[in-house]
Amino acid sequence: MKTTKKFQLAESEIPRQWYNIVADLPNQPRPLLNPQTREPLKPQEMEGLFAKELVAQEFSAQRWIDIPDEIVQLYKIYRPTPLVRARKLEKALDTPAKIYFKNESVSPVGSHKLNTAIAQAYYNSKQGIMRLTTETGAGQWGSAMSVACGYFGIELVVFMVKQSYEQKPYRKIVINTYGGKVHASPSSLTNYGRSVLESDPGCRGSLGMAISEAVEMAVTTPDTRYSLGSVLNHVLLHQTIIGLEAEKQMEMTGDYPDKVIACFGGGSNFSGISFPFLRHKLTGGRSVELIAAEPAACPKLTRGVLEYDFGDTAGMTPLIPMYTLGHDFQPEQIHAAGLRYHGGGQIVSQLKLDGFVNSCAIEQQETFAAGRLFAKTEGIIPAPESCHAIAATIREALKAKEAGRSEVLLFNLSGHGLLDMAAYESGCPDSIL
Amino acid sequence: MKTTKKFQLAESEIPRQWYNIVADLPNQPRPLLNPQTREPLKPQEMEGLFAKELVAQEFSAQRWIDIPDEIVQLYKIYRPTPLVRARKLEKALDTPAKIYFKNESVSPVGSHKLNTAIAQAYYNSKQGIMRLTTETGAGQWGSAMSVACGYFGIELVVFMVKQSYEQKPYRKIVINTYGGKVHASPSSLTNYGRSVLESDPGCRGSLGMAISEAVEMAVTTPDTRYSLGSVLNHVLLHQTIIGLEAEKQMEMTGDYPDKVIACFGGGSNFSGISFPFLRHKLTGGRSVELIAAEPAACPKLTRGVLEYDFGDTAGMTPLIPMYTLGHDFQPEQIHAAGLRYHGGGQIVSQLKLDGFVNSCAIEQQETFAAGRLFAKTEGIIPAPESCHAIAATIREALKAKEAGRSEVLLFNLSGHGLLDMAAYESGCPDSIL
Repeated sequence: MKTTKKFQLAESEIPRQWYNIVADLPNQPRPLLNPQTREPLKPQEMEGLFAKELVAQEFSAQRWIDIPDEIVQLYKIYRPTPLVRARKLEKALDTPAKIYFKNESVSPVGSHKLNTAIAQAYYNSKQGIMRLTTETGAGQWGSAMSVACGYFGIELVVFMVKQSYEQKPYRKIVINTYGGKVHASPSSLTNYGRSVLESDPGCRGSLGMAISEAVEMAVTTPDTRYSLGSVLNHVLLHQTIIGLEAEKQMEMTGDYPDKVIACFGGGSNFSGISFPFLRHKLTGGRSVELIAAEPAACPKLTRGVLEYDFGDTAGMTPLIPMYTLGHDFQPEQIHAAGLRYHGGGQIVSQLKLDGFVNSCAIEQQETFAAGRLFAKTEGIIPAPESCHAIAATIREALKAKEAGRSEVLLFNLSGHGLLDMAAYESGCPDSIL
Repeated sequence: MKTTKKFQLAESEIPRQWYNIVADLPNQPRPLLNPQTREPLKPQEMEGLFAKELVAQEFSAQRWIDIPDEIVQLYKIYRPTPLVRARKLEKALDTPAKIYFKNESVSPVGSHKLNTAIAQAYYNSKQGIMRLTTETGAGQWGSAMSVACGYFGIELVVFMVKQSYEQKPYRKIVINTYGGKVHASPSSLTNYGRSVLESDPGCRGSLGMAISEAVEMAVTTPDTRYSLGSVLNHVLLHQTIIGLEAEKQMEMTGDYPDKVIACFGGGSNFSGISFPFLRHKLTGGRSVELIAAEPAACPKLTRGVLEYDFGDTAGMTPLIPMYTLGHDFQPEQIHAAGLRYHGGGQIVSQLKLDGFVNSCAIEQQETFAAGRLFAKTEGIIPAPESCHAIAATIREALKAKEAGRSEVLLFNLSGHGLLDMAAYESGCPDSIL
């Protein structure tokens, strides 16, 4: 029997710096804009919304940014995470491709989100901010933020997309157990929520709406800030810990990835796994292809247009130059709620424009068939979001087989699906082959 | 901020042998009996029920038993598991005690059960048995067995206690996703199930009944064997991998446990973590106290009597000399379904009789308060079963505080509670302090 092979770093090998890809970009993206003046946004204009050090990171062009020791200590709860050669999956596909995955599902809440949640809670706590608001779609981000706020004694209010709030009762209890408060969005707690409910009392919510509510509460409540789980540069920065570890682990394997693959919602796990490899290509080193796996129901990179758009539905955030389906886009109710976001963010969008990011859009059925095959072969039930990365990887592995081409594939297993099991029940096909 | 400290072994340090405590027992337990003849059971009488090598292990008195390389390779999917110093929990309790826990929740299905599931699937597969039956209470064992059978292409039928089947729909989908078939027990698939349903159509089932159904199906279906997730000697043996790893990790800490604590259902995680430490005491080495944490609703060690009893409700299994509440005992419907078993098994019962095992019985409320405090401090939501180990550990830590006594406590975090979140919703107190 072919068995899985796992590559594990020592704790002492946890990277001590995050990597900021902005330092390498061949073309700098256009700036964020103040939505009132349409002038480039100044850092201090963001400081009412985010902790100062996070704003500084958002605007930084410094290549390496030190990870404070307090954050490294908390990373040690679950990091370094394993890199795994998925030999049983390879065998099931009968592919000459080598498939590796970085397993971020081993964090206590089951996803990569904790990497930035810890950092955001830390910088807020350092500034004396003891109350945060945020939103959550699938619930992964809300859970992670709730754990992280618990570490620092920060009070947390989570606006959870109503659809998920009702479909995923376990997520709500997880957030509560860690001490966070959860409200279904749209809610009657904010002006924006009330206005939505007035015009559409049965509204099921969206990530964009939940962001609007969380932002409104943060800016209208004293001593409160907001935190975002993806899209922004500082969030992507924190997630580079994934790829920096993976790079060391790929060295242990003796291989180097030809393709780095991740699912794409707002870009945080995608950037986290891929930027540390992309940096070599951007600085004239080894080549690599980046593939963002999107849901067919929300294909912002694959079918969106690059323009200035809001990060939320109500139009309260700065304007972001990004591939977008429009801030009022309402995707279908697919199970991968974490991928139902309308825009691709500033940096990834620039990289896409410049030809450094490829994307594909995958139907839900194919993603669950891929996830089920992965569960049966590698033993881990992936999150519905991560199933997209697996489906895209399987496509590449089968192409390699058809072409008789050896190839090294690396994907990010962004999270497990143990809190999303209802999604697996809904009649997905047994086999992808 | 006090942070958690994690002690991690390299893959090459995974033990290559299990430890068989039978070799050290000062008094051998009475034998299992054939229920018809009441004569000591012969190994070959068990071979219709279990794979031959498992039966050989059941009767073995050999001290060290080699772990086949195929099993070690599969252990590497999630082993070695971390040993963690719970400094944030210590701080919250303001105790001079040092608290360590072995984190078995990192396995892909979230519990220690995979340690024996892989071994049992392996030995059956080696013998050419491609169909197994089993039962599951909380669902942890059924999930683990389903993953393990998937690795070897073995067909699996799981009888799940009806109460859990209905309360835990996610568990059922997990088992299905890995390829196992699940039936609510009592079912109409067996004579025993039909007889129960006839006399009590609304019966909610019990672990003992589910065992009866699984055993009946195994012995009446060609080329089929049965597998059990706890109680029996070979199951306890496989779980010693936990304590053998923990022993090496405790060496890394420079401490040695004064007390080893685990929750107690049928004894598998308890024996797994504690026997490798107990062996030193039994062979004249360093002392250690073993504490089995039971639910007040099912206190077989704390309040049971030592006598010959059946392992199942219908009386199909051999007679086992053990502390028992009676094979027809019906415990309350506590959330820790994995601890609702009536008997303590042959070896643990002998050790208890000889004064080497202490036990305590804990009310459900106290266990969830302990679990919630653990989640908030250490970031991991424990399984309802594991909450008992945590509650017992907290009791000891607070006693040490009262006595102003430094002490080293080690408990086994047998699993996470992410598939048991409904249990956390039911109004447990916020604080244990």
